[in-house]
Amino acid sequence: MSTSTNTRRVLRGGIDLGGTKIEAIVVDARNKVLGSARHPTPISGGPADVAATMAAAMREAAGAAGVDVSTLRGVGVGSPGAVDAKAGTVASARNLPGWDGSFELGPTLAQDFGTKVFVGNDVQVATDAESELGVGRGRKSLLGVFWGTGVGGGIVIDGKPYLGAGGAGEIGHMVVKPGGRRCGCGNRGCMEAYAGRASLEAKARKEIKKGRKSDLLKVMKQKEHVRFTSAVWYEAVQDGDKLANELIDGAVAALGVGIASAVNLLDVEAVVIGGGLGVRFGEDYVKRIKKAMKPHLFPGHQPPVVELVALGDLGGAIGAALLARPPRRAAATATAR
Amino acid sequence: MSTSTNTRRVLRGGIDLGGTKIEAIVVDARNKVLGSARHPTPISGGPADVAATMAAAMREAAGAAGVDVSTLRGVGVGSPGAVDAKAGTVASARNLPGWDGSFELGPTLAQDFGTKVFVGNDVQVATDAESELGVGRGRKSLLGVFWGTGVGGGIVIDGKPYLGAGGAGEIGHMVVKPGGRRCGCGNRGCMEAYAGRASLEAKARKEIKKGRKSDLLKVMKQKEHVRFTSAVWYEAVQDGDKLANELIDGAVAALGVGIASAVNLLDVEAVVIGGGLGVRFGEDYVKRIKKAMKPHLFPGHQPPVVELVALGDLGGAIGAALLARPPRRAAATATAR
Repeated sequence: MSTSTNTRRVLRGGIDLGGTKIEAIVVDARNKVLGSARHPTPISGGPADVAATMAAAMREAAGAAGVDVSTLRGVGVGSPGAVDAKAGTVASARNLPGWDGSFELGPTLAQDFGTKVFVGNDVQVATDAESELGVGRGRKSLLGVFWGTGVGGGIVIDGKPYLGAGGAGEIGHMVVKPGGRRCGCGNRGCMEAYAGRASLEAKARKEIKKGRKSDLLKVMKQKEHVRFTSAVWYEAVQDGDKLANELIDGAVAALGVGIASAVNLLDVEAVVIGGGLGVRFGEDYVKRIKKAMKPHLFPGHQPPVVELVALGDLGGAIGAALLARPPRRAAATATAR
Repeated sequence: MSTSTNTRRVLRGGIDLGGTKIEAIVVDARNKVLGSARHPTPISGGPADVAATMAAAMREAAGAAGVDVSTLRGVGVGSPGAVDAKAGTVASARNLPGWDGSFELGPTLAQDFGTKVFVGNDVQVATDAESELGVGRGRKSLLGVFWGTGVGGGIVIDGKPYLGAGGAGEIGHMVVKPGGRRCGCGNRGCMEAYAGRASLEAKARKEIKKGRKSDLLKVMKQKEHVRFTSAVWYEAVQDGDKLANELIDGAVAALGVGIASAVNLLDVEAVVIGGGLGVRFGEDYVKRIKKAMKPHLFPGHQPPVVELVALGDLGGAIGAALLARPPRRAAATATAR
C-alpha cells in the first residue's frame, strides 16, 4: 500500500450507533469518506453484543479503506442514551437491546481497536456535522431534527453545540397532544409517540392485530426485515397503503407542531431534517414538514430555512468521526511552541 | 442634598414597559432600588402617548430617589415587541395601543430625559436580572417565563442571554393544543391563548356575554380597573368564582405543558416564573405549575428547579436598569489606562 504510517495517522473512524443500524466509516483529514460498512443493530442480547457488532462494522469499514483500525488516530462514536463523554459510558439507551443500565462502551471498543475512542451523543454529533459541513455552514444557529427510530434534536448556537445541563435537544419529547398517545418514555402525547419509527410500528401492529388491512407486514417480509424499517414504511406509503399513509401523515403533522414550537422558542436560522425516515422520505417530505410547521410558526419571526441533511445517511458517522479530531487548543499550543 | 454629582452619575434608571403597567425605578451601582413609580399603560392613543407616560413615571421615580433624571448615567427600557437595540426602535408591540409600526422609543425618551437611553426586550432583561441577581445566581442555564398580559420567555445560557436570530424565547407561542383556541398572534393553540391575561380576559368576557355567571366584572369595577388585571383575576379566584378558577386552572395546565416542552428541549437547570399573573398568584401557583409540568417532563433528565422570581414585581425594571451599566470591556480599558 502506498499510504505511509504518518498519513494513516490522520485517518479517523466514526461509528453511528442507531436503533436500527450501525454505520461505520473511515475519513481522511478533510472528512472525506474512504470506507464504510453497515450492520443491522442487534435486536436481542445486550450492550456487549451491540459493541461486538460495532467493532465488526468498524473493522469492515477500515478494510474497505485499506487500513487497520489500530492505525487510526481515533474512533468517534455517536450513541443514543445518556452519554458520559469523559468516562465513555452510555446509560439507558432505550432503543437498544438490554441497555437499561450503564455500559463502558468507549473503554470496551478502545481495548478492542487498540486506539482511542471518543463517545458523544448521536444526535448532537450529527447536528455538529451538518452545522460544520452541511446545511448549517455559514449559519449561526441550527436545529437538527433526526426523524428515525425515535425523534432526536440537536442544537447548535453560535457554532457551538448546546447541551444545556447535559441532555438538551429532546425535541421528540415536546408535547404535541397533551394526554395523547403513550410514548416509549412513559409520558403521553410526545412528538415521538406520533412520529418515531418505533412508535409508528407499535401503532401499526396494534391496528393490524385489530383487523385493519395493511401491506406493511408483507412489505417487511419481502424485504426480509424483521421490523418496519424506514424502507418498509417508504415502500408501503408509495404503494398507497392506507394505514401506512395515515400514520406517516400523522407523523408529519406532529413534526410540524413540535418543530414549529421549538423554532418559536429558539428562533434558529435553519432546521435540518435527517434520521432514517427523514433521509428515506427525502426532499418531498421535508417540504411537507415545512408546510405542516407553517400554521404554528410565530408570525413575528423570520421563518427558518428547512432542509434535508446535506450529508445524507452518513452524517451521523461523519459527525462521530469529528470527535476524534485533535483538539484545536492543543493544536494551537503545538503551533505556538 | 448630600449626594455629589459624581455619586449621582452611578445612578441608573430602569423602565419596565408592560401591557398593563409601566414601572420605573432608580437604582444605585449595586442595583439597590432608591425610588420607584408605577403608572397604568395607556389603553388608547399610540406610541407617543405611551412614551409620555413612561417619561412621567421615570420622573416620579427619580423624584422619589431625590435626583433629576438628566443626572442619571442612563435609563434602560425593557419593551415588548420587536426591539432594535442599536436604533432604539420598537416595532409591532401588539399588546400596546396603536403600536403596529415602528417607533423611535429610545431617541424620543433620550431627548426628553437629557441622558442616554438603552432599549432591550422586556422579557430578556427580566430574565437577565433573575439570572444575575435572582433565582439564576450560580446557575449555568435559566428559562424565564413571564406570565402576564402575554406569556414571554427568556433564555440564559452559560450566563449569557440567548436571542437566536433575534427573537428567541417566544415560549407563549409554543403549541399546547394543535387547532385549539385562537391566539392574539393569529395562530391556534398557543400556550398564550390559554394562559395570557389578555386571552383569558377575552375568553371570560365571551363566556359572560353568553350568559355564564361570574364576578369578574364586579371585582373589576370594585377595583376601579378597566381590565381584568392580575389583581382582578386573583381576587375572583380566591373568592371561588367558578369561571375565573376554571380559566386559571386551564392556564396552569397550558403552562405545565408548554414549559415542560421547553425544558425537554433546553434541559435548563432552573425555571423562574414571573410576570403580572405569576407574581400576583405567587408561590402556591408556582407549585401548581411545577406539578402541571411533571407528567410532561422527559424522564431521562434531572428535573429543573422551578421558582418564583426572586426580584418580584420590580425584576423587569431592575433588568432594564442593567442595560444602562457601563460596558464591561470599556470599564476594563479605562482601568488599564
